[in-house]
Amino acid sequence: MKQHFDVIVIGGGIIGCSIAYYLAKEKIDVAVFEAQTIGSKSTSAAAGMLGAHSECNDSKIFLPFARSSQLAYFELNEELKRLSHIDIELKTGGIFKLAYNDDEKIQLASLLSQSTVKWYEPTEIQRKIPNITTDIIGAAYIEDDVSVLPTSVCMAFCKSAQVLGATIHENACVLDIQKIENTFMIHSTNGKFTADNIVIANGVWSTSFFKQLGLNNRLTPVKGECLSVTSEHLTLEHTIFHDHNYIVPRNNGKLVIGATMVQNEWNEKPTLLGIESLIETAKKMLPDMTKMTIESFWGGLRPQTIDQKPYIGKHPDNDNIFFATGHFRNGILLAPETGKMIRDFILKRKIRTEWVEAFKVNR
Amino acid sequence: MKQHFDVIVIGGGIIGCSIAYYLAKEKIDVAVFEAQTIGSKSTSAAAGMLGAHSECNDSKIFLPFARSSQLAYFELNEELKRLSHIDIELKTGGIFKLAYNDDEKIQLASLLSQSTVKWYEPTEIQRKIPNITTDIIGAAYIEDDVSVLPTSVCMAFCKSAQVLGATIHENACVLDIQKIENTFMIHSTNGKFTADNIVIANGVWSTSFFKQLGLNNRLTPVKGECLSVTSEHLTLEHTIFHDHNYIVPRNNGKLVIGATMVQNEWNEKPTLLGIESLIETAKKMLPDMTKMTIESFWGGLRPQTIDQKPYIGKHPDNDNIFFATGHFRNGILLAPETGKMIRDFILKRKIRTEWVEAFKVNR
Amino acid sequence: MKQHFDVIVIGGGIIGCSIAYYLAKEKIDVAVFEAQTIGSKSTSAAAGMLGAHSECNDSKIFLPFARSSQLAYFELNEELKRLSHIDIELKTGGIFKLAYNDDEKIQLASLLSQSTVKWYEPTEIQRKIPNITTDIIGAAYIEDDVSVLPTSVCMAFCKSAQVLGATIHENACVLDIQKIENTFMIHSTNGKFTADNIVIANGVWSTSFFKQLGLNNRLTPVKGECLSVTSEHLTLEHTIFHDHNYIVPRNNGKLVIGATMVQNEWNEKPTLLGIESLIETAKKMLPDMTKMTIESFWGGLRPQTIDQKPYIGKHPDNDNIFFATGHFRNGILLAPETGKMIRDFILKRKIRTEWVEAFKVNR
Amino acid sequence: MKQHFDVIVIGGGIIGCSIAYYLAKEKIDVAVFEAQTIGSKSTSAAAGMLGAHSECNDSKIFLPFARSSQLAYFELNEELKRLSHIDIELKTGGIFKLAYNDDEKIQLASLLSQSTVKWYEPTEIQRKIPNITTDIIGAAYIEDDVSVLPTSVCMAFCKSAQVLGATIHENACVLDIQKIENTFMIHSTNGKFTADNIVIANGVWSTSFFKQLGLNNRLTPVKGECLSVTSEHLTLEHTIFHDHNYIVPRNNGKLVIGATMVQNEWNEKPTLLGIESLIETAKKMLPDMTKMTIESFWGGLRPQTIDQKPYIGKHPDNDNIFFATGHFRNGILLAPETGKMIRDFILKRKIRTEWVEAFKVNR
Repeated sequence: MKQHFDVIVIGGGIIGCSIAYYLAKEKIDVAVFEAQTIGSKSTSAAAGMLGAHSECNDSKIFLPFARSSQLAYFELNEELKRLSHIDIELKTGGIFKLAYNDDEKIQLASLLSQSTVKWYEPTEIQRKIPNITTDIIGAAYIEDDVSVLPTSVCMAFCKSAQVLGATIHENACVLDIQKIENTFMIHSTNGKFTADNIVIANGVWSTSFFKQLGLNNRLTPVKGECLSVTSEHLTLEHTIFHDHNYIVPRNNGKLVIGATMVQNEWNEKPTLLGIESLIETAKKMLPDMTKMTIESFWGGLRPQTIDQKPYIGKHPDNDNIFFATGHFRNGILLAPETGKMIRDFILKRKIRTEWVEAFKVNR
Repeated sequence: MKQHFDVIVIGGGIIGCSIAYYLAKEKIDVAVFEAQTIGSKSTSAAAGMLGAHSECNDSKIFLPFARSSQLAYFELNEELKRLSHIDIELKTGGIFKLAYNDDEKIQLASLLSQSTVKWYEPTEIQRKIPNITTDIIGAAYIEDDVSVLPTSVCMAFCKSAQVLGATIHENACVLDIQKIENTFMIHSTNGKFTADNIVIANGVWSTSFFKQLGLNNRLTPVKGECLSVTSEHLTLEHTIFHDHNYIVPRNNGKLVIGATMVQNEWNEKPTLLGIESLIETAKKMLPDMTKMTIESFWGGLRPQTIDQKPYIGKHPDNDNIFFATGHFRNGILLAPETGKMIRDFILKRKIRTEWVEAFKVNR
Repeated sequence: MKQHFDVIVIGGGIIGCSIAYYLAKEKIDVAVFEAQTIGSKSTSAAAGMLGAHSECNDSKIFLPFARSSQLAYFELNEELKRLSHIDIELKTGGIFKLAYNDDEKIQLASLLSQSTVKWYEPTEIQRKIPNITTDIIGAAYIEDDVSVLPTSVCMAFCKSAQVLGATIHENACVLDIQKIENTFMIHSTNGKFTADNIVIANGVWSTSFFKQLGLNNRLTPVKGECLSVTSEHLTLEHTIFHDHNYIVPRNNGKLVIGATMVQNEWNEKPTLLGIESLIETAKKMLPDMTKMTIESFWGGLRPQTIDQKPYIGKHPDNDNIFFATGHFRNGILLAPETGKMIRDFILKRKIRTEWVEAFKVNR
Repeated sequence: MKQHFDVIVIGGGIIGCSIAYYLAKEKIDVAVFEAQTIGSKSTSAAAGMLGAHSECNDSKIFLPFARSSQLAYFELNEELKRLSHIDIELKTGGIFKLAYNDDEKIQLASLLSQSTVKWYEPTEIQRKIPNITTDIIGAAYIEDDVSVLPTSVCMAFCKSAQVLGATIHENACVLDIQKIENTFMIHSTNGKFTADNIVIANGVWSTSFFKQLGLNNRLTPVKGECLSVTSEHLTLEHTIFHDHNYIVPRNNGKLVIGATMVQNEWNEKPTLLGIESLIETAKKMLPDMTKMTIESFWGGLRPQTIDQKPYIGKHPDNDNIFFATGHFRNGILLAPETGKMIRDFILKRKIRTEWVEAFKVNR
């Protein structure tokens, strides 16, 4: 078993696997250490909506970053299928961001100023979504905000990285990182390994590594709960979105309703309160949904930073330690560009200054 | 494989298995034909509350019948464990039937007139159930309305019957019943079999057999949806009941919230509407429940007759055809006494006239 | 609610839904009655391998029929996605049909004589499937035997049919069919409905309808059990096949191992014996599979006719009753062409005589 | 929220919950910190066989300890039900430890020398277990080796402890323990808390705490895989045991087949290899089992120490740090006596010297 790597990535969610993929493409010798199984925690709980426009209010820095990441998915679609034989289920159809009143329409103004976003009147929406609520005054339609299946993206990154030479350790909990001269030794449940570079990418569980590595950055969990429903009658082509809630159609015809926002909650399992609020939300957007039957429910923990933007950057005191965590509601959306950015840090390539600044650890 | 039986019972839910058990105890050669697997349909969906008092408003005929059946469980508890090594999980603790206002208290009057039922004031209830809503004005406490685990009761009846000589055919759908001279031939997916007596005991699916046998009795499904929740904090000793809804504690500490009443619905799977109303109901009784995490959800079909009372009796034109179906909300409660009554019909023993009259098929 | 239809199809599996789709495309007013939920029985248990070549030994009649049906999937892929927004997960990659010894190679001769089939030597196979057993002497590679996701195909047929005007009744068990002058009345758990034509398409459960309609054709169940496994390491692009067993890669990277053949068994649930034989089989083909973790297991009932070919045709005595059942191991493969053939019967279009003869009910 | 406790227990499996219960009974102010949910890891994977005799070869020290713990369950049965309303499903019936040949019979000699153990000839065994293999030459029957339902025991300990005043933090991962003067501060995902005493009781995940607290003791995982099967035909009253494998009947009639022993494996999910070996094992003991249908499968990690005996004792350099971990195959069996022993350490009560010596951390 290989003991030394150029890069060890701690965390085998979508962020860690994207990093491994982009590094392996450059023939960097990378290993991923995942405490559980690949993509089994927050990644598996995400709905997979790539809401570059619908989720990002900061249009100067965050939106271009998110947009670039979103576009990367169109290339990845073929690229990952060829390498891993996995289909990431990129689903076009776009998002309708609903406005129930004039205030909400006004809030959509800056979104609507973009060339790729269009306003729809209720009657037009009803042609596209026959079951839509009659309570709306219209919606912003964002064709580019497509969706993917997060577990498949993550597994496709992971297998493609392996095809390109990466090493994956599942069920390998990293207990401790030690700096020994110019290399790092990690002590994991799978044994000891060394690397020239370390990347911390394990979401809300990254806090203890920040601490071990001398930093006080803290991630807090924001639990999200979801429901999956089915019906042989209702067909939905487009994602519907309102106030951080959404109904996302899947490739198999099922609909995912998400997601609650429960601050500072570590329990991943849905509560009665959470499920009730999801039903409330869905009913408001698509009244007919209440007749649909429940398939399953689940929850996951979003890693939240103080300013709700991710940490993607170097350790302030060590050029060989990197962080890629804190992606909050947007881990799936931002995974490709995060992977590229960490790759560029490690290869000492040029990175857009405003992104380096915006996502640096010591901000 | 045995081809002829004294009695063939169609339906391997709790009613059919109880009948088989009581017949096998008398050395009657009985076989059960179940289209799916034992206890897998309505039986498995029931909460198992033995609400002789809480469910029965008719105190003249129905209550004594229900009460007798309820008491039988106390004997069955040991008897079935000895034969089948299965624990039916008889759980004492009783039921609190809540009153939110004076009207509801008045409705409890006849219940409260019984010696086994006692009125509790809110403060007393809070001592017993610390998390109970403060909105009630009191509750009727019925110590005798205990609960059991329906799938275990059904399996215990089934295995005990087998130990005593009964034959069980699972996955054996009965397609057709023919009368050939003095015997009946059934054509099942497991082959052809004959019997001297036939008992129809397959719940809401009995309608087609009534029809085949020349009767127009019709059963309609009333779907019930349930939720199971868990919490390491909340402990509940007693069942809480209000307006056909209940929260039943299980032996393993989980709580079952049930059950909706959806008329004429054949789809067993819970809908969003059903789940929402269960959460609403539970929250009203135990506000803290909304913090509990969901374990699972399910649904089942109650067989409803025109007057909501079961059919337990002979075919009006044939002394060797029996019906035991239509138990609506009370299949678990009434299973033992139904089994005894069919046994007594077949053995031509004396049965209380008022029960024969009340439950006869041609009423 | 609509009471009369041009055509009523009994059975909402992949056969019934395909028929409904092809009829609805021709603006025929069609309704499907499904006793449970769409695609929930045998359809949901199938692996979805479209083995026109690998499954069909009769190259004269059956193979062209199967081949035509297989090719229809390439059109359906886009067509159904556009109408229903469901992806049928058509997965190319083809099948390797393994030969462990010279006898088995000889048995592949007629298959290999086809232009679309190619022989591979072990070293070539190892380049394509690195983990393949070293015990083989080669394999026939059939590029055209692709796979689909059966539940998605079925749901896509169902929803597309609805978009085109079809009516779907789920949880609607048909109890009885009566001929009343020139129309048929069905008595279902959803009520009574009439139609000018009736199609029986409910797989192994069709026997009772043959009987009701005066025919003695009998379908027997051949249970098939399957396992789904996962691994973050192993990647498989091609289906591997040997002696009626196969390992099929899914779009999400999971592998399906199938399927046992248990004659005359109505219980759908996998037994220990079945699971053991699947593991044995898979290990023989891909020795590394034993390290993979199990995701789930399931079973289903293949409808088998006397000669293992389907019944697709008219009632011998009634031009308005049709049968489309008994597809045995090939329901998914043959669904499109079966749908078209029933459509052509109803529309009185010309159908290839050899197919009419081969699949007629009274053969 | 309470910030300071007399004792903080890290780990909410059956060991940690037993400790909390016995401390709470003595009015010690105790809190349990569990990284996931109560009893959700190794505890939930255990079969619950209390094999004091069948599992313990060392009759001098280990057997009396195990025996004492086993007997405690008979008291706990009522005690925990009264406090928590949870039934631990204590199931009598005992264990048959099979001998397939003379060598194996000889190995049972010391066991058979005990007064509570009796030798049975094959014909006697067949009377008790009609489906038993005919390949055995006899079996040792140990009536006292009963079984319990591990998740229910753990939850009953947890809820009873709370009723008696204990605090439970679920989803509270302890990241770090610091000694600050005479108290300990733990840094958890639920915040910072202090305690006068710390107990490490989180099974195979304890290694990192040994390390943090300056010790090199190391626990390695030994994965165990299990299967649950069901049948309406087969009834089993007694546990059957051979060579570390067993078939345990549950109170609901299901049978648990366990368990594999996979050294140094952190992945909890069953592999094909594991499932295959379980079926092999079960078939050897009860040939008819292969007809039974599978209900579910799961795995868990046994915490193994160098000598396969638990660590129950003080930190060699600090009288306020305790360890209770490494219970390997016997966590359920030893939980009560481990709880009492840690209680006695904390209360400075007398403990049997040979137990202190046998289980001390620095041995």
